[in-house]
Amino acid sequence: MSVTYPSGFLAAGVTAGFKPSGLPDLGLLVGDPGTVVAGVFTTNLVSAAPVRLSRARLALGAPRAVVVNSGQANAATGARGDADAETTTASAATALGLDAAEMLQCSTGVIGEPLHLPQLDAALPALVDALSPEGGEDFARAIMTTDTVDKRATAESDGIRVGGCAKGVGMIAPNLATMLVFVTTDAAVAAPDLQRLAAEQLKPRFNSLTVDASTSTNDTVLLFASGASGAPAVAPGSLSWVRLAESVAAVGESLLRQLAADAEGANHVLIVEVEGAEADQDARTIAKAIADSPLVKTAAFGGDPNPGRILQAAGAAGVGFDPASLDVWIGDVQLAEGGVIPPEYFETDALIEKARAQMQVPEIAIRVKVGDGQARSRAMGCDLSYEYVRINGEYTT
Amino acid sequence: MSVTYPSGFLAAGVTAGFKPSGLPDLGLLVGDPGTVVAGVFTTNLVSAAPVRLSRARLALGAPRAVVVNSGQANAATGARGDADAETTTASAATALGLDAAEMLQCSTGVIGEPLHLPQLDAALPALVDALSPEGGEDFARAIMTTDTVDKRATAESDGIRVGGCAKGVGMIAPNLATMLVFVTTDAAVAAPDLQRLAAEQLKPRFNSLTVDASTSTNDTVLLFASGASGAPAVAPGSLSWVRLAESVAAVGESLLRQLAADAEGANHVLIVEVEGAEADQDARTIAKAIADSPLVKTAAFGGDPNPGRILQAAGAAGVGFDPASLDVWIGDVQLAEGGVIPPEYFETDALIEKARAQMQVPEIAIRVKVGDGQARSRAMGCDLSYEYVRINGEYTT
Repeated sequence: MSVTYPSGFLAAGVTAGFKPSGLPDLGLLVGDPGTVVAGVFTTNLVSAAPVRLSRARLALGAPRAVVVNSGQANAATGARGDADAETTTASAATALGLDAAEMLQCSTGVIGEPLHLPQLDAALPALVDALSPEGGEDFARAIMTTDTVDKRATAESDGIRVGGCAKGVGMIAPNLATMLVFVTTDAAVAAPDLQRLAAEQLKPRFNSLTVDASTSTNDTVLLFASGASGAPAVAPGSLSWVRLAESVAAVGESLLRQLAADAEGANHVLIVEVEGAEADQDARTIAKAIADSPLVKTAAFGGDPNPGRILQAAGAAGVGFDPASLDVWIGDVQLAEGGVIPPEYFETDALIEKARAQMQVPEIAIRVKVGDGQARSRAMGCDLSYEYVRINGEYTT
Repeated sequence: MSVTYPSGFLAAGVTAGFKPSGLPDLGLLVGDPGTVVAGVFTTNLVSAAPVRLSRARLALGAPRAVVVNSGQANAATGARGDADAETTTASAATALGLDAAEMLQCSTGVIGEPLHLPQLDAALPALVDALSPEGGEDFARAIMTTDTVDKRATAESDGIRVGGCAKGVGMIAPNLATMLVFVTTDAAVAAPDLQRLAAEQLKPRFNSLTVDASTSTNDTVLLFASGASGAPAVAPGSLSWVRLAESVAAVGESLLRQLAADAEGANHVLIVEVEGAEADQDARTIAKAIADSPLVKTAAFGGDPNPGRILQAAGAAGVGFDPASLDVWIGDVQLAEGGVIPPEYFETDALIEKARAQMQVPEIAIRVKVGDGQARSRAMGCDLSYEYVRINGEYTT
């Protein structure tokens, strides 16, 4: 059910013709009047026009709907791109009988290619006609680019529902780009509290994902709250806040793992946990460095438990720690203690074979302890395969 | 002729049996009495035992020889590794009739695997016997791991010669690791001036190289000056200093390009020039981000002139600049101006075809202007191919 699992939302997805494939490429999600929205956007300086538009509109507090096109990213399109994003939201708002200030936009696809406005205008009536409280799956499919499956998740507690969908298989895929995440709830949540929920439960989670260390120009996470559950408003400090946070986290976590599993060319998800750091940022930097290392990623592809590559990536992360306190595990097999790889790793097959078995699972767990600090972090990545090179190398503009 | 092109150096390379292949794997380079040495080492916290030993000995000023083994990196080997490095230099010094303080060590190979000391002891007499003023090529071959060719360069001006050799095809290859660079001159140069020459002419050059964004545990650049040319001592501020710096730079630049061209799986060298930045470090960070981007690297492999990926990588580098002032060229074809990819790139084939021709060359030139600042930098990388994934993925410990 995706984003229409909670009450108070309509969604739809149709084919406008932006993608040569003829697959659905235009989606619409609309919350009931009173819906509030929180957003988290790419930190890439080269941000896309729809990112700039949505960020500015959210700051004014009016939005309750989003129109999403897949096929063209509307990034690196300059003033024309900004005008096209304005036109798109104005047209969609008019078709819905909303004010343009109520409409957000997300785009994903080829960087630099202008939006196809005539196709958009032609498709808008059918899109609005298709809006339905069961439209979440169509919406989830319409936002896909090179994704092989649509990604959807739901959670419920105390009569409050949370739903979501996401797309993205490379930070920038074969020129088709971007992670987009849409999460909805029928809880009533004040706008600043909703932004806090997005910042605490969704932002760090999706920031921990790295397919190819390439932050897209269009990444967007939107969290909608309709209040349509009828439950009392949820505010920080209450039990219902904790429950709602858990539901949002559960939907976010599920979408995160679906994104990692569908990453371009991926056969394995890499879950890198770093602990014992002095600061959260240090732990995060080391975890990302390991998850981004082409040598760790190719080792994961080859099923090779290669502790030297993990030590190398940690040591080169640019974060201070004592290398003589470095412990490394793959799954439950310890492969470095106090910065030393046990010599028996090279002398007998038993330890290697035990470790190799830990590489044959869908989600490979790498754990690194860098000291006795209290800070920890997690990064989620994937292996680097021939298929990644094929997808991104054989593609030509 | 490599490192024995200048006067005052003997070198040799033999097979000790560290590498299963049976290829030469033990090298020795010895300068005449009075030779001074400058060094630049890896910044990886997980530094190898020979790096720690060589760094400490250089600080004391006595070294004039280096013994190099390929096959085992002697990294992540703990106290045993430190003891093994001490033993290796002591044995080599004894065989040469030198003091251990005069001997440096470099190692490259499998991380974690201890050195094979019995094989070393057995091979040292033959190694010392083989020392010769024509031994530079044997030395260059003995330091190779997965390199497909040995890398050598020479330069001469005003009767002063500079020679060098290098190895390294991945920062860490299939567990066989490391960039090692040895440059020699027969100029007479005082130790602090020689360190300055290494810092100014060699360090930034080799720091600009990125095969897979993975700083090895063992990277070492050593610059030897024997004084055997008979020319007067060369000191900063003189014309002979400028000439010597040019010769050292020429040998460094040649070795750098040979390293990039032989990088694991590489079909193209990527030369990324960033200009118009506010600070050198900013330019360097952006250039490295582009050269390290898996999406730019796979585009280079596929021959796809993909300006969106270059913009994406620049924008995500974490350095502040105005994206509306971003200009991008591939070769002499401009593919973004003021942050905008020209729409005709998507509308006609002419511009794409012109750009694609610029991708078919051995050295692909990417130039990015990020503003009107005076700072500029260059990064040198390579494409990301199936072969890189095969080399690093199919290998198992």
